Amino acid sequence: MSGILKGMRVVEGSAFVAVPLAGMTLAQMGAEVIRFDRIGGGLDAGRWPLAPSGQSLFWAGLNKGKKSIAVDMSRPEGRELITRIVTAPGEDAGLFLTNLRVRGWMDYDTLKQRREDLIMVTLMGDRHGRPAVDYTVNPALGIPEMTGPEGWPEPVAHALPAWDLVAGQLVVSSLLAAERERLRRGRGQEVELSLKDVAAAAIGHLGLIGDAVVNEAERGKSGNALYGAYGQDFLCACGRRVMVIGLTHRQWRGLVKATDSAAAMADLAARSGRDLNDEGVRWELRHDITAILRPWFAARTVADFAGDFDAVGLTWSVFRSVREALAEDPDLSEDNPMFRLLDQPGLGRFPVPGHPAVFSGHHRQDPQSAPRLGAHTEEILGDVLGLGDAEIARLFDSGVVQGPGRAARRAA
Amino acid sequence: MSGILKGMRVVEGSAFVAVPLAGMTLAQMGAEVIRFDRIGGGLDAGRWPLAPSGQSLFWAGLNKGKKSIAVDMSRPEGRELITRIVTAPGEDAGLFLTNLRVRGWMDYDTLKQRREDLIMVTLMGDRHGRPAVDYTVNPALGIPEMTGPEGWPEPVAHALPAWDLVAGQLVVSSLLAAERERLRRGRGQEVELSLKDVAAAAIGHLGLIGDAVVNEAERGKSGNALYGAYGQDFLCACGRRVMVIGLTHRQWRGLVKATDSAAAMADLAARSGRDLNDEGVRWELRHDITAILRPWFAARTVADFAGDFDAVGLTWSVFRSVREALAEDPDLSEDNPMFRLLDQPGLGRFPVPGHPAVFSGHHRQDPQSAPRLGAHTEEILGDVLGLGDAEIARLFDSGVVQGPGRAARRAA
Repeated sequence: MSGILKGMRVVEGSAFVAVPLAGMTLAQMGAEVIRFDRIGGGLDAGRWPLAPSGQSLFWAGLNKGKKSIAVDMSRPEGRELITRIVTAPGEDAGLFLTNLRVRGWMDYDTLKQRREDLIMVTLMGDRHGRPAVDYTVNPALGIPEMTGPEGWPEPVAHALPAWDLVAGQLVVSSLLAAERERLRRGRGQEVELSLKDVAAAAIGHLGLIGDAVVNEAERGKSGNALYGAYGQDFLCACGRRVMVIGLTHRQWRGLVKATDSAAAMADLAARSGRDLNDEGVRWELRHDITAILRPWFAARTVADFAGDFDAVGLTWSVFRSVREALAEDPDLSEDNPMFRLLDQPGLGRFPVPGHPAVFSGHHRQDPQSAPRLGAHTEEILGDVLGLGDAEIARLFDSGVVQGPGRAARRAA
Repeated sequence: MSGILKGMRVVEGSAFVAVPLAGMTLAQMGAEVIRFDRIGGGLDAGRWPLAPSGQSLFWAGLNKGKKSIAVDMSRPEGRELITRIVTAPGEDAGLFLTNLRVRGWMDYDTLKQRREDLIMVTLMGDRHGRPAVDYTVNPALGIPEMTGPEGWPEPVAHALPAWDLVAGQLVVSSLLAAERERLRRGRGQEVELSLKDVAAAAIGHLGLIGDAVVNEAERGKSGNALYGAYGQDFLCACGRRVMVIGLTHRQWRGLVKATDSAAAMADLAARSGRDLNDEGVRWELRHDITAILRPWFAARTVADFAGDFDAVGLTWSVFRSVREALAEDPDLSEDNPMFRLLDQPGLGRFPVPGHPAVFSGHHRQDPQSAPRLGAHTEEILGDVLGLGDAEIARLFDSGVVQGPGRAARRAA
């Protein structure tokens, strides 16, 4: 009844968000995930936010439940160790994720010579192999042009590395699809995708490319309005702000009823000669609708209507900061079985999330902390590569590998 | 050499973004995906953007390559047809995705009685089963508080349904993980996740929860700056805007060198007594760094430096609207093998994306258009359920099912 991927072993050579998230997602489904890093840590070892100790909360968040090995890959002996770990035998091993794009010894064709049925998933910046991050992909594809307050003259970035998050999950599903084929037919393969293609595909899927071509439309900024139907934020008498949604017909009717605005909406429909039951009309008349609803919210506190809104099943929420959400919302606490309060040395005690999905055939797997860099170096050399104590000691002594656990043990 | 999931059959009862995207992702990897809808179309049938014909570009974008059946589920006979399609035999069938949460006949426990090894993945709004959309999840978790121009007094929504996109890919990987277990052990299961939990997990993974708890930090708005290191937008002499990144040490050194600003940065370091090789220092001194770089960009057109920036491998991009991107960027054209220019009746001709990943064991699968609603009703009743012509005709005549293909054929 442990994780659904128990028994699978994945090796990850990565940095930043997407591929670390992919490996962690697999680990949180029960896979053994080995992340290797250079001595001293990878490119993301010090990524903000940091804890007061200087340790990266970001790194700890994206590498939970993995095993860590630190190897000096500038030396042939270190590269050989990584090659052996990536291509180690095992029916459910030979699975490699990376965004590092190291030419030569870490190429698929090279690694494949050591394990014919290797599956390797590589995430690139763009399809040409050039670097890219969410902060550059978004401007290139037009997202900041449609983000921000209505009328604001400049592009506005959003705060989430959304493409990294999406790409990470695509790395997971690509790996599982390739492994499914290997289970059936015995053959491995190389899988390649790029962050920019993930984003370009998504704007196509959402209709933005079609809209730009066939309507010659430039979707502009629309502030906090829900695009294409009705949804808007309102300031309430208590000083708090809420978001209310009238996307579906049911949501719209519920919103009109709960705000007692049927007569005013009928008047708007009559004045404009438009049918507000058409979601596109609600979008086009959103400023008029908002003008009707604004006084209703301005005259009430959230407490005045929250119970009613929930009782009729409206889709709505209050605006919060992350700290307010942590203080107010049980969904961000251990009341939500996805979260566990973990004491993490060097980081502190806070709610840590596991995998969002619950599999009925398995107990929900509690989230585990991230390892310290190199914490499993000794274990991996012994268990995965079958090296003896003397050989492992030699590798530590010569600086080919490193690990805090080993150092601690030798000092003890 | 066709799609990697060829032979798999998935049934989808869905609306909007996440679950339709999940089904489409599977279809673009070669699975047969049957989306069922009520007569006249589901909740998302008219979602904006629309083509001039009134057909939804959004729906067409998220349902590419699927088979469509339209059934009157208000009638017991219609519900029985859907039940039979979901639970139809086949080693690689019995896979069901939904976000509709219909109680009773569409519950996992009910469907399981008809196929013991059914795998059903249900995406909810929140873990309590309440409705939620990106537009409400973001405010609830603090994202709009950290989005927008520095100093802007109100929360700013971002324009992407990011959680829907992430959740859709989690639906895919959850399905594949469950199907992997079924291949090995023969048992199916129910998988449940919620949009809000997907978002809450992600902000935890990114370190935002730890930052809020252990640092008592509220990440504020920082405009278009890259959080935690250096990255900023600049207006150039040609009127265009660029984003440049100095996240890694290599990127930072490259940016300083390419902009000939080493002396000015050394001066800033001396004045401030801080080390700009520390990414966090770059973040804290970002306004000073930007003041140094701004005149350099203001004095140059993009054409002046684009070649140099690319030659040294800087991570950067120009800002574009979607239309500008379509006009300028070959990555959004058929030059990119992910895209195909498709003529889609009722929609128009524009570049349509396939799956972002390339599997070396398979030819890249070209994107297919979305079906018209009910286009495969007759085919599915015949091929999946094995109904005869007379029975199929009776179902059409009685209005239990509908389909444009059938109507066309009968009129012919």
